[in-house]
Amino acid sequence: MYVDIGNALDGDLGLAREDLDALDGRVADAHERIARGRADSEHGYAALNLPETCDPDAIRTAAAGFDPDHLLTVGIGGSALGAATLTDALGGDLDCRYLDNVDPVWVASILADVDLSSTVVNVVSRSGTTAETLSNFLVVREAMEAAGVDWTERTVVTTGASGNLRAMADQHDLPALDVPDGVPGRFSALSTVGLFAAELAGADLDALLAGAAAEADRLAGSLYESPAYAYGATTYALAERGAVTNAVMPYAESLERFAEWFAQLWAESLGKDEHGQTPARALGATDQHSQLQLYRAGPADKLVTLVRPREADDVAIPETDLEGLSYLGGSSLGELLDAEFRATEASLAAAGRENVRVELDRVDEHGLGELLYGMEAATVLYGELAGVSTFTQPAVEWGKNAARGLLGGGDFPEADAVSEKRRLEVE
Amino acid sequence: MYVDIGNALDGDLGLAREDLDALDGRVADAHERIARGRADSEHGYAALNLPETCDPDAIRTAAAGFDPDHLLTVGIGGSALGAATLTDALGGDLDCRYLDNVDPVWVASILADVDLSSTVVNVVSRSGTTAETLSNFLVVREAMEAAGVDWTERTVVTTGASGNLRAMADQHDLPALDVPDGVPGRFSALSTVGLFAAELAGADLDALLAGAAAEADRLAGSLYESPAYAYGATTYALAERGAVTNAVMPYAESLERFAEWFAQLWAESLGKDEHGQTPARALGATDQHSQLQLYRAGPADKLVTLVRPREADDVAIPETDLEGLSYLGGSSLGELLDAEFRATEASLAAAGRENVRVELDRVDEHGLGELLYGMEAATVLYGELAGVSTFTQPAVEWGKNAARGLLGGGDFPEADAVSEKRRLEVE
Repeated sequence: MYVDIGNALDGDLGLAREDLDALDGRVADAHERIARGRADSEHGYAALNLPETCDPDAIRTAAAGFDPDHLLTVGIGGSALGAATLTDALGGDLDCRYLDNVDPVWVASILADVDLSSTVVNVVSRSGTTAETLSNFLVVREAMEAAGVDWTERTVVTTGASGNLRAMADQHDLPALDVPDGVPGRFSALSTVGLFAAELAGADLDALLAGAAAEADRLAGSLYESPAYAYGATTYALAERGAVTNAVMPYAESLERFAEWFAQLWAESLGKDEHGQTPARALGATDQHSQLQLYRAGPADKLVTLVRPREADDVAIPETDLEGLSYLGGSSLGELLDAEFRATEASLAAAGRENVRVELDRVDEHGLGELLYGMEAATVLYGELAGVSTFTQPAVEWGKNAARGLLGGGDFPEADAVSEKRRLEVE
Repeated sequence: MYVDIGNALDGDLGLAREDLDALDGRVADAHERIARGRADSEHGYAALNLPETCDPDAIRTAAAGFDPDHLLTVGIGGSALGAATLTDALGGDLDCRYLDNVDPVWVASILADVDLSSTVVNVVSRSGTTAETLSNFLVVREAMEAAGVDWTERTVVTTGASGNLRAMADQHDLPALDVPDGVPGRFSALSTVGLFAAELAGADLDALLAGAAAEADRLAGSLYESPAYAYGATTYALAERGAVTNAVMPYAESLERFAEWFAQLWAESLGKDEHGQTPARALGATDQHSQLQLYRAGPADKLVTLVRPREADDVAIPETDLEGLSYLGGSSLGELLDAEFRATEASLAAAGRENVRVELDRVDEHGLGELLYGMEAATVLYGELAGVSTFTQPAVEWGKNAARGLLGGGDFPEADAVSEKRRLEVE
């Protein structure tokens, strides 16, 4: 992963090189704290050890013998986004679907759309009790039975050491993968949780883990020596100066889901105690015709993170006699995209709007391993600098309790608050 | 469209009912200004007349005779998002793809994926010179020729009264639709630009325009009498009090693209003169496991807009003996989604975080007509209250010039600024 923070300096938010120099001592301290956490496999920090601790052979064994046309991953949040990021980016022939929502219209349309007799189902929940995931799994299982498909022959479980799903796997002798200890869902892309789908889709897990390991090797006690820390420290410093939004804008359709994965990682890890930078998702070049007006001319309260591969296959633009377009003929879509990338970056800088460039060599296994690991390490560093509890998500519990109470799943005072909703309706 | 602003009042940003009462006089003035703009068909305001001025028969005529398996809409920004919002939401059998980016890997994968002999191409550009759109069109046209498909038999042009594409349509006798005067791209969903794809996908254009007309009829001189103005005035009042982010969170997968369409409308219309609220996209229930932690426990600087249909088809959750899940059995995915919607709304309110509920009857033509028109009118009202030039997008020109200069399309000083990029690279 390559990070260029040149355009983060001396913009309207006033971050200067000296500020980063002054921050670098705190980066060194945070790096020590992170290294200690990794050495002790502390909760959360253990995620940064996955390049060593993840066993790809266990994943290959669970996937062995399957050759489906469709993969239905049933999970939500961190139990789906890492896998989706990898399979979306890497492409391939396997039709990978992610049942990460309980919208009934949508669930029914997916079930109508796939051939269940040629589908593998991967149900992913550490606890085995996640309401959305288990509801969807029950629906999928019933649909398989209705279609005359033996679900026990086509289901792979990814869960914790005990609980419902583990018991079900034991009972029916299903392939079962362990969700690793100490790894929060949003940091689990490079574990069994994210890699089973990648393996089934034909990805090279060794290259993914090698990319992540290479990025891990670049962690060091200075932001100027580690791309991940350069990103984490710069975003933190800009947030302290008023960058309330971090707009992540990949210039590659294959990385659109990466922006969604990043948004979860960033929001859920750092959004607490009335702090936290809001991730916004954009896509280049498309959003130059959409969000860019705001990013350039709106409030000076944003960082734009531009992400792209340095190399990709290209498509030539045919010569044309259409008036005013001769300059495009003989060029290529890749050259156009590159020109637009650099133009947007310069356009923001010329308006005083901070931006950071993040690049990977290619959108392939090695590059994605670097990128995902690098962004995880950047998040952990930011969390250390901000003094937040990076690996928890306490604010989601209230709503979970309320929903469970509403469904008759127990006596939760939060459910009573729902019925007291204040209304001011305009029709 | 139904708007409930009850949870926007008395949260941490301190908006009180009296503040809205005081604002309502300005809403009345803005409504008069909007009505005058509509009566005179002024630039931009003319978009709010589309329910009357759009001629669905012209669109039906252009689509008549085609019965393709695939539709490739070649356009970018407002030339694609409205159509994509409609066809994504309404579903159907036609495979609708939107070539709204110049990523060569992605363009090549789409061309490899569709049967060009059963494809209709709709190229959409008012000027006929949009670099991304015309480059993609040249690539698609060449691919058709290479596949032995007569592109002149399968291409529909949507463009202005003159220019490249109009001349091409005349020369080859292609079906051609007019981009209406006075309608900026991001306000063109309910015109030829958005409706051709909907028609080809089998939508009822009359119902779409009737829904929009019904919402137009609800525009009135008080925010308490018009759902669109209730939304526009409340978002404006909250933004003035520090809601820098508007997180739009539909609880329907079919409305995911709507959030993207809204983000363009909001950002490009209102993001200028150092003002403008940043749209963020989320999706319920999925993002309860992602963004909600930040929305509830992060800075009190956001409004969350929760959007959903009041009715939808449902899927039962099978009974189960899985431990701890009996409360789900006998319920349905729709009931679970509803409980999660109400729980999230209450969870935000209990934490002092402002939120607004926007509902439509169903995700169908009439409901979408109401929703899109309502959000456009809300945007125009917000623009009037904020005193911005809602219908322009001056900040995108700099980057366009720079990109064109980089590609050798003329002498643009902006291109020189690109080469002066400041670098601080960490590898």
